[in-house]
Amino acid sequence: MCVIGLGLIGGSVMRAATTAGRDVFGYNRSIDGADAARADGFDATTDLDEALGKAADAGALIVLAVPMPALAPILRRVRDRAPHCPVTDVTSVKGAVLAEVRAAGLLERFVGGHPMAGTAHSGWHATDAGLFVDAPWVLSVDEQVDGQVWTEAMTLALDCGAFVVPALSDEHDLAAATISHLPHLLAEALATTAGAIPLSFALAAGSFRDGTRVAATAPELVRAMCEANATQLVSVLDQALRLLTDARDHLAEGRPVSDLVDAGHAARLRYDTFSRPSIDDVVIGADGWRAELAAAGRAGGVIRSALPTRDSPAENPPHPR
Amino acid sequence: MCVIGLGLIGGSVMRAATTAGRDVFGYNRSIDGADAARADGFDATTDLDEALGKAADAGALIVLAVPMPALAPILRRVRDRAPHCPVTDVTSVKGAVLAEVRAAGLLERFVGGHPMAGTAHSGWHATDAGLFVDAPWVLSVDEQVDGQVWTEAMTLALDCGAFVVPALSDEHDLAAATISHLPHLLAEALATTAGAIPLSFALAAGSFRDGTRVAATAPELVRAMCEANATQLVSVLDQALRLLTDARDHLAEGRPVSDLVDAGHAARLRYDTFSRPSIDDVVIGADGWRAELAAAGRAGGVIRSALPTRDSPAENPPHPR
Repeated sequence: MCVIGLGLIGGSVMRAATTAGRDVFGYNRSIDGADAARADGFDATTDLDEALGKAADAGALIVLAVPMPALAPILRRVRDRAPHCPVTDVTSVKGAVLAEVRAAGLLERFVGGHPMAGTAHSGWHATDAGLFVDAPWVLSVDEQVDGQVWTEAMTLALDCGAFVVPALSDEHDLAAATISHLPHLLAEALATTAGAIPLSFALAAGSFRDGTRVAATAPELVRAMCEANATQLVSVLDQALRLLTDARDHLAEGRPVSDLVDAGHAARLRYDTFSRPSIDDVVIGADGWRAELAAAGRAGGVIRSALPTRDSPAENPPHPR
Repeated sequence: MCVIGLGLIGGSVMRAATTAGRDVFGYNRSIDGADAARADGFDATTDLDEALGKAADAGALIVLAVPMPALAPILRRVRDRAPHCPVTDVTSVKGAVLAEVRAAGLLERFVGGHPMAGTAHSGWHATDAGLFVDAPWVLSVDEQVDGQVWTEAMTLALDCGAFVVPALSDEHDLAAATISHLPHLLAEALATTAGAIPLSFALAAGSFRDGTRVAATAPELVRAMCEANATQLVSVLDQALRLLTDARDHLAEGRPVSDLVDAGHAARLRYDTFSRPSIDDVVIGADGWRAELAAAGRAGGVIRSALPTRDSPAENPPHPR
């Protein structure tokens, strides 16, 4: 398989897939990143055409792990150099990626992916073969996805130690806005507000540290994911602003803030006891398989071991390339 | 010394002060809490007059560790039964406590305190002798505080392993609103928003977990601290709402969110490198000592070992009672 972009996520996919016994090679734009990967014993080049040519020859799964702004030109090169390879990605916003993939004419070989893992650090030096262990890895089940490509992406996610959450791209983006992009903006607002108040850093303890941890993320990464998912983010941000403004008005009028506090506490407890039943009764490629997976994912279901496909039973998964 | 209220904070003070070699006894309203403390070998009663009578006989430092709504009647009993004892507290809001202390006529024997430590759990069973180790413990330096009482409160905080941050009550409350009460409301809003979006719990990972951790705190504790500090909290909440609304408008208009993201990142980095120089050149009780400590605390200064007092040098601190 071929990983395009060897930053935190792409590099960690390269490490994890290699640990799982796969034959992996990759491309990185910067010489420093490619050199660092090579120094750690990996097959990395700064020549995109070389990597894509090798992928085309092997029919390898191509994993796009470049930032959103770099995606369009890369997709055009994939179309020109490796048009028949199955393609997946690891980008945090699925609707915007899908639009670029459609524009590049690669829709039928593409399954969008998003491993929900990360750290505040970035670059090859932060990569970790264990980054995806027990983490959710979303795979899109939009109506156009191909069962064979989906199976390849699923096998990669499972090989990396993740469990797979099947979801429609739009639903993913609204949920990601809520549980990832919104927390980033709240953390930035909290850190900024505290930064202007004398004595606040002197008193800061656990609730401030936890509440601002993700504000340490590189600003360009935060901007990229928030701005690429702007429509969905505005919708959940409006909801959070309504809740906070209500609480603010209650406090200003000397009334209790029980509405917000009780609802927040109840939601967090539901999250703590949220179960993830295994999905094991869907056959990839069978009639209605995409809608079945979307419904199961919406209900909390996850894929922990490879599902069978209509053409190849689970006992005999496709050989990883 | 005498601890009134043996919940998470009061009980942990009892454990920490005992570990430091002090003679500690306490009162708890509920039989269960007092029984649990006694079962762990501590001197605890459910008879408030008995505890206060013993404190009066010994001239013991009284530590008020009851929730805000229970404070006024307790203060009246302290005034009636132990009016000459030095008194401190461990409540998260200092202005409101000061008003109650003033109303009870106990101002001249009182120094407000606030150890900035806690967990999402409460009650005696959550107590921990190490809870305050390396945590900030605020002591108020309002204009009326007595040097001798201040020294006793300082010695207790240091005995518990904390470092002391001197601050005016008002400044403390604004900072506490920012770094403790605001994060709680943001966490409640984040958890509530996510709770209404299908798929969000299924995708939640680190940034959601961290951002909602304090939403697991008992709602009555969150309400008590937010509502008791409503004025200051409204002020910082307005600031956070302004920042988030600006970001929302930028996103809706397809403009970058760099203002908020860059400011938040910079503030968090400043916090990560925030240093806490030791205050060691102030003599408690000397001319202008309160203003000197307030200024030093505002600049990040903390007290890590007992300051000398005008009447008793640091080499010979008052014997803990």
